[in-house]
Amino acid sequence: MIYTVTLNPALDYFMNYEELALGEVNRTGKTQISAGGKGIMESRMLSLIGAKSKALGFLGGFSGQYIKDFLNENQIDSDFTEIEDLTRINVKLKSQENETSFDAAGPKLQESEINHFLEKFDHLKEDDIVVFAGTIPKSLGEDFYERLIAKVQKQKATFVMDVDGQKLLDSLPAHPLLIKPNREELEAIFETSFKNNEQIIPYGQKLLEMGAQNVIVSMAGDGALLFTNEKVYFAQGIKGELKNSIGAGDSTVAGFLAEYSQSKDPLLAFRQAIACGTSKAFSDDMPSRAFLEEIYKKVNISEVK
Amino acid sequence: MIYTVTLNPALDYFMNYEELALGEVNRTGKTQISAGGKGIMESRMLSLIGAKSKALGFLGGFSGQYIKDFLNENQIDSDFTEIEDLTRINVKLKSQENETSFDAAGPKLQESEINHFLEKFDHLKEDDIVVFAGTIPKSLGEDFYERLIAKVQKQKATFVMDVDGQKLLDSLPAHPLLIKPNREELEAIFETSFKNNEQIIPYGQKLLEMGAQNVIVSMAGDGALLFTNEKVYFAQGIKGELKNSIGAGDSTVAGFLAEYSQSKDPLLAFRQAIACGTSKAFSDDMPSRAFLEEIYKKVNISEVK
Repeated sequence: MIYTVTLNPALDYFMNYEELALGEVNRTGKTQISAGGKGIMESRMLSLIGAKSKALGFLGGFSGQYIKDFLNENQIDSDFTEIEDLTRINVKLKSQENETSFDAAGPKLQESEINHFLEKFDHLKEDDIVVFAGTIPKSLGEDFYERLIAKVQKQKATFVMDVDGQKLLDSLPAHPLLIKPNREELEAIFETSFKNNEQIIPYGQKLLEMGAQNVIVSMAGDGALLFTNEKVYFAQGIKGELKNSIGAGDSTVAGFLAEYSQSKDPLLAFRQAIACGTSKAFSDDMPSRAFLEEIYKKVNISEVK
Repeated sequence: MIYTVTLNPALDYFMNYEELALGEVNRTGKTQISAGGKGIMESRMLSLIGAKSKALGFLGGFSGQYIKDFLNENQIDSDFTEIEDLTRINVKLKSQENETSFDAAGPKLQESEINHFLEKFDHLKEDDIVVFAGTIPKSLGEDFYERLIAKVQKQKATFVMDVDGQKLLDSLPAHPLLIKPNREELEAIFETSFKNNEQIIPYGQKLLEMGAQNVIVSMAGDGALLFTNEKVYFAQGIKGELKNSIGAGDSTVAGFLAEYSQSKDPLLAFRQAIACGTSKAFSDDMPSRAFLEEIYKKVNISEVK
């Protein structure tokens, strides 16, 4: 089973405005609500390509109930820990000119709620894969992923780390099956900047040396690199209209896992990863199965090293 | 029975920010949610001072459910018409410098939902008072209050009009029991500006001539004027710290109605109106009973004319 973990999910409230005046009452145009969170997006994509997963994390209040109902209606299996506090609501203001996010802080979690969540990790099996994705609510403490990784290792299960910065580096000694920094995140981690793909290669390899089993470095429209213990592969960027990049990275991770959990073939998994990430970026919400398969046929991967 | 009508209620989502940068991701500080809508606020104040009321209007989706649960938990009687579309969510950004509102459009209402709401007006009794407060969702049409007033009149019941501009003027021939423009609204209606209270008096009297039974003109910290068919009264502004003016006007209307529906004495009702409006403005949320009574003792009313 694949478990996706979203410690700090959000109800995303999109508001479109024609003009925005600070300090005034603004009449908003179209509004839209969606269930946000990297692990939730991963579970949605896994479900779309027919891979079984279970979404874990914390949900509370009416906003949490909305997300739970949404997952149920979309036949996405979940086992969120119910909390007393409210799941946060993030506001996304959209205009022709720009997008402004107001991201709310996470909920207050009680000791009993945290313990209830932790217990789920005692039942992991050896062939389970757990995906850790996104930020941590303050009340869990900055080392919460380390605690979870220790639990995964105790059960001899596998994990994927879809976070950025120091938390990503901290996870490497525990050998995550996959990490997926994008170019900018890799630049930030190693305090450098890349002028071409060639320059990225030694840094991707360095992440392998530091403990990652597989590394995908995504470069938006410029394609992506896969680093395995044997080889380095390059997937060309696919041409198309960018519609909504939110969740494209999560979809990439989901695509990799859906295939890898079956075939254990990282190259096949990379192909599915690129198809899922790209078709998501080219769709307003989730892509259709047909569109995903169309994009899959366009994936072009070559050996680099 | 007093009925309050909120055609376009809202879940108000308050987000506090330290600094705001458009086009960026902003981390928001404290957030807070409240059940918004003028009629709902009136019902809350009526309940606080022990007057029975029933809140009417349209509620739908998870945001509507939140408001319904809130009213239930606060023992406020309501009979909202359930709708398929979502009750709107308004976002209120607060900083030290300013407050910015993003007010969403109202829900789409279906013919069957509108009819279900309208039927409630066929059961009004002669001693019922209906308060119409706030804006109208687009799908109801601009003349919806006129249709509702006709229904109130058919049942020989009484109504109060707590709206602004042309809609207020349009209601006058049907003799509302009370209207409550503030100074700025009165200036806008008659396209004039007032330098002192003296100048307001002929315009308040004009509203009586046009059909209103009682008129309160509120002037924030400068007090308020009551126009009845016999007299004009002035209530001095009460000194105190303004904490949250949202709902102060609605509380003023509620105070008037709570007393008037019992004693039919507009002067006593005015006293209660001032106490409710002022104690609300001096409180973050609703005032306590004790604080309201303390403010009541400070109300100072004199005959002007």
